[in-house]
Amino acid sequence: MIVCADNVQVLSASVQRCFEREDPWPVRELVARCMKAGADMIDINPGPMGKKGRRHMAFLVRTIQDIIDLPVMIDTADPKLMEAGLRANRATAVVNGISLEPEKFEGMLPLIKDTETDVVGYLLTREGQVPPDADTRFGIAVELVEALQSNGVDPGRLIIDPILTPLTWENGPLRAREALSTIRMLPDVLGFPVRTMAGLSNLTSGCPDPEKRLHVECMFIPMLAACGLTILLMNALHAPAVQMVRSCRLITRPGVFSWEQVPPAI
Amino acid sequence: MIVCADNVQVLSASVQRCFEREDPWPVRELVARCMKAGADMIDINPGPMGKKGRRHMAFLVRTIQDIIDLPVMIDTADPKLMEAGLRANRATAVVNGISLEPEKFEGMLPLIKDTETDVVGYLLTREGQVPPDADTRFGIAVELVEALQSNGVDPGRLIIDPILTPLTWENGPLRAREALSTIRMLPDVLGFPVRTMAGLSNLTSGCPDPEKRLHVECMFIPMLAACGLTILLMNALHAPAVQMVRSCRLITRPGVFSWEQVPPAI
Repeated sequence: MIVCADNVQVLSASVQRCFEREDPWPVRELVARCMKAGADMIDINPGPMGKKGRRHMAFLVRTIQDIIDLPVMIDTADPKLMEAGLRANRATAVVNGISLEPEKFEGMLPLIKDTETDVVGYLLTREGQVPPDADTRFGIAVELVEALQSNGVDPGRLIIDPILTPLTWENGPLRAREALSTIRMLPDVLGFPVRTMAGLSNLTSGCPDPEKRLHVECMFIPMLAACGLTILLMNALHAPAVQMVRSCRLITRPGVFSWEQVPPAI
Repeated sequence: MIVCADNVQVLSASVQRCFEREDPWPVRELVARCMKAGADMIDINPGPMGKKGRRHMAFLVRTIQDIIDLPVMIDTADPKLMEAGLRANRATAVVNGISLEPEKFEGMLPLIKDTETDVVGYLLTREGQVPPDADTRFGIAVELVEALQSNGVDPGRLIIDPILTPLTWENGPLRAREALSTIRMLPDVLGFPVRTMAGLSNLTSGCPDPEKRLHVECMFIPMLAACGLTILLMNALHAPAVQMVRSCRLITRPGVFSWEQVPPAI
């Protein structure tokens, strides 16, 4: 399980300062901190940005790639912003993402065909709804793989996100369990070792208490790890949560265990 | 997932004081603390105790049942001590346990047939070895169920312990993953909703650093919960670990989630 930092997003003060002054340093400092804290990848989500959107997206991609070598996820539902991000990319980028929603699929498809990047596929219905259970998600995943294949896109490029929903939603814990089952069973269902991704902050959104939020995230991380999750999208500056990811790797990765490898308590 | 306290065991100072003076209060205080800390069940493991063994076992069972109503696990490989414990029992007791090792199976069988208690079944080979993988464990589990059935014992009484081994053993992380798979798949393999148990301290035994040990236990608890473990044998006075068990229940149990239910940070 690797950490993709979700810190570079429109609500971040660093990103806001970057946009206001076209000054790269607030974001450079932010991503340097994320990398030092354990991020293996950086998600770039500049939000819906109006006319300046394309310039801002390109600016963020270049700003980040000027300072670090980590892969970036270009996180937007807008094909024009995606195109701007992919054009600015000079290293490894991931398209984040597509789904079966017709507008999104058609909008992103030419960009995906033009590149060889990995692609995040969201298990949303054609109407943009989050399915309640694992079985519906499997149906959508199969359909997504077939849609990509029939358009000449290698499904090996897919990273599937089953979509975590807030625990406070109706049947929230059941939904979380279904998302876990989806992550665990997808490689068997699809018949190839498909990679998976989950956005941790979705699960705990709306929590009034930062300590409880962090505790529940630290509890859910090993559950995701035990189900074989590939990429965890998370706040890379939540130190105990990143420590938990690292400790999980001692169980989930091949290799010899020694107590020296366990990160020191925070 | 419920907590079975492993605190009442021969190395505990409270148990030693109890034995030396035949004074019930050190153990009563200990189990009261365990119950307050969140224990749902108490394991009683007086160790190999020589001539006084039977008296000590009966003394512990009575001492504990005088003060609390929780079920007790009578934890001994010695059929004579087991018999003493079961005779002293006035509430709910669990036989802990049996395995396919011929001497243990034959020794415990009459006691199991005489009572209607639940029974912990260890997935050890006939030679007393811990199997390295899940498939070997499934074979042993099927054989254990058949051996009980052919002796007229309802396999619904079984609580299966796949046996965790220290992470520092050769292939320790792989062994841990195989134990998790065993726990997750056993109900499907056996064809009935068999309960499972795991001894958490086995996983981390030999750790030189108590904080790291606790951290790795807190990481492994949600993995066990995600695999559907029924009973976690653990130190009930490790507060962050018990807190983790409680938080896991918010995901694994039916019911509505609310942030008020999340235990406060420790």
